[in-house]
Amino acid sequence: MSPSFVYNGDLAAAAGGKPAGTGRVASVYSDVQTSRIDHDLPLPSVLKGPIKVVDGPPSSAAGNPGEIAKLFPCVFGQPSAMVVPSDSASDGPSQKLKIGVVLSGGQAPGGHNVIAGIFDYLQDRAKGSTLYGFRGGPAGIMKCKYVELTPEYIYPYRNQGGFDMICSGRDKIETPEQFKQAEETAKKLDLDGLVVIGGDDSNTNACLLAENFRSKNMKTRVIGCPKTIDGDLKCKEVPVSFGFDTACKIYSEQIGNVMVDARSTGKYYHFVRLMGRAASHITLECALQTHPNITIIGEEVAAKKLTLKNVTDYIVDVVCKRAGFGYNYGVILIPEGLIDFIPEVQHLISELNEILAHDVVDEGGLWKKKLQTQSLELFEFLPQAIQEQLMLERDPHGNVQVAKIETEKMLIQMVETELEKRKQEGTYKGNFKGQSHFFGYEGRCGLPTNFDSTYCYALGFAAGALLQSGKTGLISSVANLAAPLSEWTVGGTALTSLMDVERRHVQTWIF
Amino acid sequence: MSPSFVYNGDLAAAAGGKPAGTGRVASVYSDVQTSRIDHDLPLPSVLKGPIKVVDGPPSSAAGNPGEIAKLFPCVFGQPSAMVVPSDSASDGPSQKLKIGVVLSGGQAPGGHNVIAGIFDYLQDRAKGSTLYGFRGGPAGIMKCKYVELTPEYIYPYRNQGGFDMICSGRDKIETPEQFKQAEETAKKLDLDGLVVIGGDDSNTNACLLAENFRSKNMKTRVIGCPKTIDGDLKCKEVPVSFGFDTACKIYSEQIGNVMVDARSTGKYYHFVRLMGRAASHITLECALQTHPNITIIGEEVAAKKLTLKNVTDYIVDVVCKRAGFGYNYGVILIPEGLIDFIPEVQHLISELNEILAHDVVDEGGLWKKKLQTQSLELFEFLPQAIQEQLMLERDPHGNVQVAKIETEKMLIQMVETELEKRKQEGTYKGNFKGQSHFFGYEGRCGLPTNFDSTYCYALGFAAGALLQSGKTGLISSVANLAAPLSEWTVGGTALTSLMDVERRHVQTWIF
Repeated sequence: MSPSFVYNGDLAAAAGGKPAGTGRVASVYSDVQTSRIDHDLPLPSVLKGPIKVVDGPPSSAAGNPGEIAKLFPCVFGQPSAMVVPSDSASDGPSQKLKIGVVLSGGQAPGGHNVIAGIFDYLQDRAKGSTLYGFRGGPAGIMKCKYVELTPEYIYPYRNQGGFDMICSGRDKIETPEQFKQAEETAKKLDLDGLVVIGGDDSNTNACLLAENFRSKNMKTRVIGCPKTIDGDLKCKEVPVSFGFDTACKIYSEQIGNVMVDARSTGKYYHFVRLMGRAASHITLECALQTHPNITIIGEEVAAKKLTLKNVTDYIVDVVCKRAGFGYNYGVILIPEGLIDFIPEVQHLISELNEILAHDVVDEGGLWKKKLQTQSLELFEFLPQAIQEQLMLERDPHGNVQVAKIETEKMLIQMVETELEKRKQEGTYKGNFKGQSHFFGYEGRCGLPTNFDSTYCYALGFAAGALLQSGKTGLISSVANLAAPLSEWTVGGTALTSLMDVERRHVQTWIF
Repeated sequence: MSPSFVYNGDLAAAAGGKPAGTGRVASVYSDVQTSRIDHDLPLPSVLKGPIKVVDGPPSSAAGNPGEIAKLFPCVFGQPSAMVVPSDSASDGPSQKLKIGVVLSGGQAPGGHNVIAGIFDYLQDRAKGSTLYGFRGGPAGIMKCKYVELTPEYIYPYRNQGGFDMICSGRDKIETPEQFKQAEETAKKLDLDGLVVIGGDDSNTNACLLAENFRSKNMKTRVIGCPKTIDGDLKCKEVPVSFGFDTACKIYSEQIGNVMVDARSTGKYYHFVRLMGRAASHITLECALQTHPNITIIGEEVAAKKLTLKNVTDYIVDVVCKRAGFGYNYGVILIPEGLIDFIPEVQHLISELNEILAHDVVDEGGLWKKKLQTQSLELFEFLPQAIQEQLMLERDPHGNVQVAKIETEKMLIQMVETELEKRKQEGTYKGNFKGQSHFFGYEGRCGLPTNFDSTYCYALGFAAGALLQSGKTGLISSVANLAAPLSEWTVGGTALTSLMDVERRHVQTWIF
């Protein structure tokens, strides 16, 4: 290896030659990580003593219950369940369980603690049980790729960020063939239960699995867990998804630093794009924590049918007003998914996709005549670099890649252009320099906060209790979170009760 | 204000209507900031009791002493000074001093503590003294824009990041007219001393000011302080510049999170560009803290005269090797200034500047024939987007804007292209997806670490002691930092002794 570069290989590999994904080696941890491993994980009072699971009234759906009932004939209408103290400990030794757990989709801080919670619950309340971790997400279920989790295997991941204990993946179990593979795995491992830790799509998938297993009279039950830093898996019974708290705190610290930088230098407008495509919750929460100068919320832009020009003008108005006070700096928060929330952009994109699929794009620009007036105006309003990006970068299906547009840079260019105009009109006399940022990946895998650590551990315990009591098709629900930990409530909510058939791609959650 | 956006204005303005830069309001602090305000600031043993300042042997220069002596006839050759315990406290009340302090250049965590250190030293050892803070950097000296610092004014900035107590600026005091303005301010405020907190250029400027004041027989003495997160202001007497420790820890935490993300997802190569244009010290230190898969160090690239193709091939080789083990992910650290370290890029840029200044650039590309063979090859090797950026984006002097090139994205594209080739040759069978990051501004203004907090406070005390003992043209030097705090040494080093006339722009420091 060339000595002009440092090359240390993998974290785990560096420490003991173990390949990635076969277990962390705690001895290579930083001081902070080490101090977190043995961090105390307190439980809600109800989980400390003997418990029983009691049913509530039957449930319906968030919308279109008739259609949901047809899609989930076996599990629809199930009551929600509540974990409550039991007067007496269960008689004799409890039944040994075989449980599988899988991480699905993007990382969120706390996922490891859900697994630790399930494991500790089984160790404590169903001695002799086995917990299998499926590797690399739902594909691990289909391919029967798993690891049997032991106290030693789990230990170095306690209170640590990331999903690398068993890794994650974005595959879905959807086709009849895939369901069959899942059934085979469940039978091969003799699974009593499966915990799916994921976001809205993954929990919908968990419910389909629960329905499928029950329809085949299999014993394998399925419980979901609410995971996503985006914070958009949310309802009365599931007040927050795990990871949101940690991610917002990490981003807010970065934003706070950038705000201090802006004030110290006095010459930059920092445009900060924050992770969260389908929802602007992270952006809103970070704004509440940091008080930036401007915050754009995608849902409000959509509700008001604002155009890109409206958004630009709003920013420009604030910049001009601040320049009047002598402030030529500031911080502006933008949600990752802003562009998806602007109706006119959606129109332009679909027209472009149509044109690019069927017509020759001539250099002279005659093709533009095929755009509707509003779309043409928008296209001409976009900075040249963005125009080129829209025309040149396509996904494998030939479609424009909206997600690749760096919204923060696009807005800087559009604000610059508009300010230049106002300068010439004499209505703006300040100086504008934009700096762009994207805060994303560094927040998905941070060390979970005390809240996320404790919340996830309780979610894992709840999932264990629900499976032990024979429940399926529920999502692990820990609520009353604003109260002291001792008063947190623990239970499970029928996944179908959170559903609607209002379509995004497939069934989607209401929030 | 449109209700569709959150607008809270300025941090200070939100809290009490105070305009930015006229003092923080601690009540709007976060819990973490609040907990840091009263953080204990211990002193090296030598600063706890009565002290005296003793001289060492006469000094020379890091290089070209003859030339340095000509440039600084009054202050060249001064001995370094050492603060040592004194047997007895000074007799009677000490002389009251009038001292100015200025922050110069980019932010570095700990700057506020240097000011607090000077202030507390004066309160403790020269009661009745006055400390003026010049606003907005050296321009504040020239325009006599200042604030008289009081305990109440300084309190909320203790152990806090940023430079917003008095703000900073990048102006230099260079021309005879500017020196005259500085003299006028020094006379108007009757200054006994001035502390310049800055990087290499600012300390060179501090030395010029010291020389100028002494040559005019003015009483105003000048002491520098070593500030820069880049860590390249460094020698035996000044083992580290303040801010480097904090910035590296902030970046390392972010890098660590991204590494966990890479391992959890298993499908991305994260290309992380780190702040530090003239030196790769931050990148090296972060690599030592986090052990990424690949680290590129600019100084080594330059020393080995590597080409961009060499660097690309090195990365591609590692990616291929890892793919062979089944790892299609990793983290790669790149210093912000990498491009400036590659000789062939420098040649290409200077040829382009020449051509763009004098010739018409034809669309057909005939202009390229004016490039030398090596430069043409490099140009053709660059991704199209970078080629366009080089041709289109110019600074006000018409020059190519190298600093605007996002090196991490450029490398991703070049690695993609090379991997595609190897795939076709059959020597690479993996999957490559690059994700780009730039970690910069969020590290400049973070909360200073305990080390930077304590170090800066001692630097401030040292500056106060040096000024009180009549020293000028020295840089505040706190050393023996690897030993326990009680054994840290405190003194001042002749600024001229650190100089050489080897030119970057003006005189530069040797490190």
